[in-house]
Amino acid sequence: MFSDQRLADLNQPLLAEHQLHFQHLADSPRLRYQDVQAVVQKLIEFQVAIPSWALGTGGTRFGRFALGGEPRTLEEKIGDVGILQSLNRSSNSISLHIPWDIPQDIAGLQQLLKQQGLVIDSVNSNTFQDQKDQPQSYKFGSLSHTEKAVREQAIQHNIDCVRYGEQLDAKTLTVWLADGSNFPGQQHLRRAFLRTQESLAAIYEAMPTDWTMLVEYKPYEPNFYSMVIPDWGTSLALCQAIGANAQVLVDLGHHLPNTNIEQIVGRLRQFGRLGGFHFNGSMYGDDDLTTGSTKPFQLFLIFNELVDSALDQTVPAAAVAYMIDASHNVKDPLEDLLQSVENILSAYAKALLVDRNALNEAQESNDVVRAEEILRDAFLSDVRPLVAEAYRQSGGALNPIAAYRAEGVREQLIHQRGKHSVSTGL
Amino acid sequence: MFSDQRLADLNQPLLAEHQLHFQHLADSPRLRYQDVQAVVQKLIEFQVAIPSWALGTGGTRFGRFALGGEPRTLEEKIGDVGILQSLNRSSNSISLHIPWDIPQDIAGLQQLLKQQGLVIDSVNSNTFQDQKDQPQSYKFGSLSHTEKAVREQAIQHNIDCVRYGEQLDAKTLTVWLADGSNFPGQQHLRRAFLRTQESLAAIYEAMPTDWTMLVEYKPYEPNFYSMVIPDWGTSLALCQAIGANAQVLVDLGHHLPNTNIEQIVGRLRQFGRLGGFHFNGSMYGDDDLTTGSTKPFQLFLIFNELVDSALDQTVPAAAVAYMIDASHNVKDPLEDLLQSVENILSAYAKALLVDRNALNEAQESNDVVRAEEILRDAFLSDVRPLVAEAYRQSGGALNPIAAYRAEGVREQLIHQRGKHSVSTGL
Amino acid sequence: MFSDQRLADLNQPLLAEHQLHFQHLADSPRLRYQDVQAVVQKLIEFQVAIPSWALGTGGTRFGRFALGGEPRTLEEKIGDVGILQSLNRSSNSISLHIPWDIPQDIAGLQQLLKQQGLVIDSVNSNTFQDQKDQPQSYKFGSLSHTEKAVREQAIQHNIDCVRYGEQLDAKTLTVWLADGSNFPGQQHLRRAFLRTQESLAAIYEAMPTDWTMLVEYKPYEPNFYSMVIPDWGTSLALCQAIGANAQVLVDLGHHLPNTNIEQIVGRLRQFGRLGGFHFNGSMYGDDDLTTGSTKPFQLFLIFNELVDSALDQTVPAAAVAYMIDASHNVKDPLEDLLQSVENILSAYAKALLVDRNALNEAQESNDVVRAEEILRDAFLSDVRPLVAEAYRQSGGALNPIAAYRAEGVREQLIHQRGKHSVSTGL
Amino acid sequence: MFSDQRLADLNQPLLAEHQLHFQHLADSPRLRYQDVQAVVQKLIEFQVAIPSWALGTGGTRFGRFALGGEPRTLEEKIGDVGILQSLNRSSNSISLHIPWDIPQDIAGLQQLLKQQGLVIDSVNSNTFQDQKDQPQSYKFGSLSHTEKAVREQAIQHNIDCVRYGEQLDAKTLTVWLADGSNFPGQQHLRRAFLRTQESLAAIYEAMPTDWTMLVEYKPYEPNFYSMVIPDWGTSLALCQAIGANAQVLVDLGHHLPNTNIEQIVGRLRQFGRLGGFHFNGSMYGDDDLTTGSTKPFQLFLIFNELVDSALDQTVPAAAVAYMIDASHNVKDPLEDLLQSVENILSAYAKALLVDRNALNEAQESNDVVRAEEILRDAFLSDVRPLVAEAYRQSGGALNPIAAYRAEGVREQLIHQRGKHSVSTGL
Repeated sequence: MFSDQRLADLNQPLLAEHQLHFQHLADSPRLRYQDVQAVVQKLIEFQVAIPSWALGTGGTRFGRFALGGEPRTLEEKIGDVGILQSLNRSSNSISLHIPWDIPQDIAGLQQLLKQQGLVIDSVNSNTFQDQKDQPQSYKFGSLSHTEKAVREQAIQHNIDCVRYGEQLDAKTLTVWLADGSNFPGQQHLRRAFLRTQESLAAIYEAMPTDWTMLVEYKPYEPNFYSMVIPDWGTSLALCQAIGANAQVLVDLGHHLPNTNIEQIVGRLRQFGRLGGFHFNGSMYGDDDLTTGSTKPFQLFLIFNELVDSALDQTVPAAAVAYMIDASHNVKDPLEDLLQSVENILSAYAKALLVDRNALNEAQESNDVVRAEEILRDAFLSDVRPLVAEAYRQSGGALNPIAAYRAEGVREQLIHQRGKHSVSTGL
Repeated sequence: MFSDQRLADLNQPLLAEHQLHFQHLADSPRLRYQDVQAVVQKLIEFQVAIPSWALGTGGTRFGRFALGGEPRTLEEKIGDVGILQSLNRSSNSISLHIPWDIPQDIAGLQQLLKQQGLVIDSVNSNTFQDQKDQPQSYKFGSLSHTEKAVREQAIQHNIDCVRYGEQLDAKTLTVWLADGSNFPGQQHLRRAFLRTQESLAAIYEAMPTDWTMLVEYKPYEPNFYSMVIPDWGTSLALCQAIGANAQVLVDLGHHLPNTNIEQIVGRLRQFGRLGGFHFNGSMYGDDDLTTGSTKPFQLFLIFNELVDSALDQTVPAAAVAYMIDASHNVKDPLEDLLQSVENILSAYAKALLVDRNALNEAQESNDVVRAEEILRDAFLSDVRPLVAEAYRQSGGALNPIAAYRAEGVREQLIHQRGKHSVSTGL
Repeated sequence: MFSDQRLADLNQPLLAEHQLHFQHLADSPRLRYQDVQAVVQKLIEFQVAIPSWALGTGGTRFGRFALGGEPRTLEEKIGDVGILQSLNRSSNSISLHIPWDIPQDIAGLQQLLKQQGLVIDSVNSNTFQDQKDQPQSYKFGSLSHTEKAVREQAIQHNIDCVRYGEQLDAKTLTVWLADGSNFPGQQHLRRAFLRTQESLAAIYEAMPTDWTMLVEYKPYEPNFYSMVIPDWGTSLALCQAIGANAQVLVDLGHHLPNTNIEQIVGRLRQFGRLGGFHFNGSMYGDDDLTTGSTKPFQLFLIFNELVDSALDQTVPAAAVAYMIDASHNVKDPLEDLLQSVENILSAYAKALLVDRNALNEAQESNDVVRAEEILRDAFLSDVRPLVAEAYRQSGGALNPIAAYRAEGVREQLIHQRGKHSVSTGL
Repeated sequence: MFSDQRLADLNQPLLAEHQLHFQHLADSPRLRYQDVQAVVQKLIEFQVAIPSWALGTGGTRFGRFALGGEPRTLEEKIGDVGILQSLNRSSNSISLHIPWDIPQDIAGLQQLLKQQGLVIDSVNSNTFQDQKDQPQSYKFGSLSHTEKAVREQAIQHNIDCVRYGEQLDAKTLTVWLADGSNFPGQQHLRRAFLRTQESLAAIYEAMPTDWTMLVEYKPYEPNFYSMVIPDWGTSLALCQAIGANAQVLVDLGHHLPNTNIEQIVGRLRQFGRLGGFHFNGSMYGDDDLTTGSTKPFQLFLIFNELVDSALDQTVPAAAVAYMIDASHNVKDPLEDLLQSVENILSAYAKALLVDRNALNEAQESNDVVRAEEILRDAFLSDVRPLVAEAYRQSGGALNPIAAYRAEGVREQLIHQRGKHSVSTGL
């Protein structure tokens, strides 16, 4: 974790140039309709959760190239998130993955979290792998499995996750169900759905009433013919059948080619069922790259829907859980996460800059060119000074990655943890 | 229309070979679990509607190459469908498109239909084009338009369609909504959805209570950024909001790349909301080719879901309207329709041949290879003798296309209607 | 055409704010490695051709909604491009489409072009539609047709296009071949390729030696099973077989989902065979929208390859013809074209801003994060002041669309040409 | 390995029914233009190689569920292929993967291969993973790496593969290059290509002159922004630059959505550069499923191109290496491979049944319906009796999977090798 003094020292040489850009933006007649400080304030308040499983090097089925200095324990993972948070002040929470990160010393963890200014936001269950000594195998499914014993084991695992989460004051269970089939005929599609619905309902029953269950969808991988929950329509149908606190989770990489994701986001908000987000980047499939790295305009359009619906009285008020879910195959995971958070904040900042009254007017009068130009005006703006100012005002680094590198964090971590430490995860 | 005698003459030389194949299949130990005649009987009962707009040459935005002899009036279109029906006895109904086929002489039409053994199954509204002298333009939408006057015109047009349909004893209104936007920002996505919901509800209100409204979805084209109803989830949400007789229509070409359509079909059946089908063939998008011409296995898997769900007590009983919706750009439309119906019947026949008990057993025990083999066993069977037998038993031609060609039907139509007659349609 | 005085008047109220932004950018330490005026100069020199077929409202196969005031003659089309050119000074050339725009009064046209400061850059042949009274039909192909008479007609049409072009000092023939098939089996794929190669070679033979033939590729539409020239590999193979002046044309909308187009662009430059570009925007297929409207980052990455390869000594020097090829279905075509040119210039400006030495260094040392950040630094910059300055210095409007609207150009055109004038095109 | 006597015993109860079906097909007037025994003979001659890496359970990055009884050594792998070959007599060769299967006891292996009637057809290099104690890492590429030392290591590894192959009389080196980048800017696209070309040329130089180098392409995974060899066009360009014995390898799963693969196959044959095939099944990406399991019609159309080009005098004669490259995640790998070979033989059999004279005639006269029907006539035929007859005549099992199950092969393997034996591979 970076101390305030250290951060001040690192920021010092960058300050003058930052002020120049920020002031230019603040004074810009382009933004005359905006209160720039109000935008900065919203950026300061925005927080995105860091997944405990993404602090080590990720890989593909073809291999994994470790980096060194990876966290070996939950405590070390909290330490890594603490570093990120001290730099950008926008990642104050952790998504836990069970069983990779089963908390042992609860009191110690609570103290450690408090000390780093962090919270646990959600717990994620895992029924897509077999753990050593697990009685039943998930080879042919878990919550949708044909055999009751397998389903019961999977249900119990999810309930266990909730119990772990309760100990650490989490309020959200995220269920990503890998169940499906690889071949036509392998699975009875409708029965698999019904069994899944029953299993999810049983987990929901066991959840405290102030918890939220997030139901994720994905069209393919690890199953390549059918997934039991392939699309938002299926997620929504399941949530509606289960209860008000069951909500859809949108993972940016979990869509078929050319999907208009921002429309799905807006629609789920409208239906009062958008519970959370998994941010990552995707060009072909569930590529799990840095979010915003290949489709920055799409990320902006998604935030445009979020900002717009948050202002809309007709849309049910709702908390949306923002989480990163990426795999860091060729970058230092901590640098990648700093980039991801910055890309998210940039997209959010741009969405906040949209002149909504003017846009509404252009939309209602079908002035296509003008409507588009108003939206693009925000997208084309260089909002980096706003994001940096949010970092600065909240006590972080003006340039988190530069600070991370200047400090030699990775080298220190390798020194502490070794060149060949390997984190749990994919 | 082919007379019974003419058909008998045309069938005569083919009969011996047909009997050979049919008998081999009927005797085949492979089918020992099946009552072959029961399969043939189901094929005889199966009927698929012919669209009035697909009896002329279709085209793309790049051009259209007319064929000659195209029907110029609704009466001539009924005549064309009569020809098909006399040949295959499986296309006894017509989907009407308004305003291309506004019925004028109701009594005459009713008599003509009766004479040809045909019925009108559904009426299709058109709010994706402007008609001459139409007060409001649909350039920027219809049921979702920002202006009330446009929406009201579009609602009234749909109600008019219902009224026309009532006169001809139709019971179904098919709504394909082309509304959407071409550019980010052009349309307020959530308001467009709400206005659409209101408009559909108004039309639904005006429909007789024994009518069904089919709500079609499509991910893109003619709008290329967003469509108001892009996917089955949106269609379903609208239907649920509107009423029990609002049902989802699945058009095979209206999906993003790699979509598992058969799963959607099964799921909509499960939810009691699969109201109808538009059959066509697709390799890239809404290609509107002969159904089954590029993905015959997919067509079989779709019928597998339909047959399986029809046998399933837990699935709501429901009538599914089967309709062709294709564009015949390089084939004689009548030949193309004969092929389409045959491909549909073949897929249905194969689905009927599936040994469901064995399949269920393999599925429940996760014997993946066996489950797949059971399903493939049906698909790999050569069911052409079954389809031909269904034609024969119901009084049609053993080989409809051969009969059509032998009779020189197209040449006769060109002679009657001219080389340059052009049918309404796309 | 806007007079210099009128433009000065229109620019006057915007000038102070423009200077503020431009000066901020010019002074920015971010760009310290760049000579800003050199960038502006390159923008001034950049010219993109306007297609004669895109000056009227476009449409889809589902319909076309005319706008009014569309140009009715080639002379009026030149007038429209003159308006664009007077506003942005970046669209000084016209791509002609034959037979829609067969030049009649050559001397008059030459004078008109000169007067407007325009040139004809290329002629585009059309063998995807049948023209009235054309002896042979292209229904089943043109340059690839099975019948020699059809191929000869199509070859002669292309040669005619060259002859028309010669009269107007064009130097480029663009061949987009729509030939292909809709159904497996319809076309013998290899023979169709060989016939096409022969036909192209015959056209090439008839071309003056200082002309270039651009061979376009497209994976589907209007044919939906196979296209004779579906991908860059096929285009390249044909060009290599034909001659050094046969070059590949890349149309941004002519790729399968998820294609990395910038890599293709770089590779074709490397092979010395990138002859030209068709700019447009695409989310699903050949959507023909405003270029840069849905994937601005991709457009930047494409220009990054172009700028980088232009600086690379190992890459064959080559002229690349830049052309717009879009369809304006819901926007005023002239506004759309102004947007398109601006988006292209913006992408080019950003590519020029890339710190190539730093990028090379990061790439060679596999510093992934730094390489990415260097590239993104340019993309995230707000280059609108640079583009506006290029407009200004070259004598155009600081804000072309605002000027166009302020002047009421469309209203004037409607007044002159009528509400229902319809331009040739798709 | 099944003994002849055992196979005879297993075939006995199936023989009567088989003869019934085979005889019906042989007598069928449908096939009157075919010499059925000639077709069977071609099926007997057809051989497809089994990959040494696909004899154990495969997995995804999310996990792997082992089956038990997996081969632990190259000798055991040869044993497994021997079992397959004794059953279907169509898989007489093995593709070796280095370093997973480095041969040690050459003489012993040669004897073992001879005894089982097997040969080694190709060796496959692996530069997509780091091996223990490897000096240089492939994290950022191998043959395209920025550093010479890495490239040299990768080149030497490929040459080592050739040397291993020579010892076992292989004649083919298969190069699948995973190199690429995950982020825009990470890699200089053109330099990466040039370095790859140099590296491949160096390997080619070291190859015996009677060897073939197969250059595979893949659009994405494990890199998700760019692959150095993403498409057939790039593979072809590399092969042309390197030498006549460098040939393109087509892997069915390595294409963007909706690619017409059969056209690529035909084109590469035409260019004399189709060197080999990797068969597998794909619905979304490189799914590596049983070939033919999701797109049986596509597999048929591919064989149609192969059969047609083999008969075509204008196409360069060439040996095409047929290999399976799949991953068996939920099936017994040996059963999966038996299915795969059977699906390939079926597709080939159907392609052999096509009435080529009639098809050519229909194609040349643009009789679209007839051309399609001729092709479909072959596809819709039930060719299982032909494949079974080929098995029978060549001394294999009439129903290989049934024989495999009846014999309890997997149980025996588990008994011999243990429940937790794990094979090398992905």
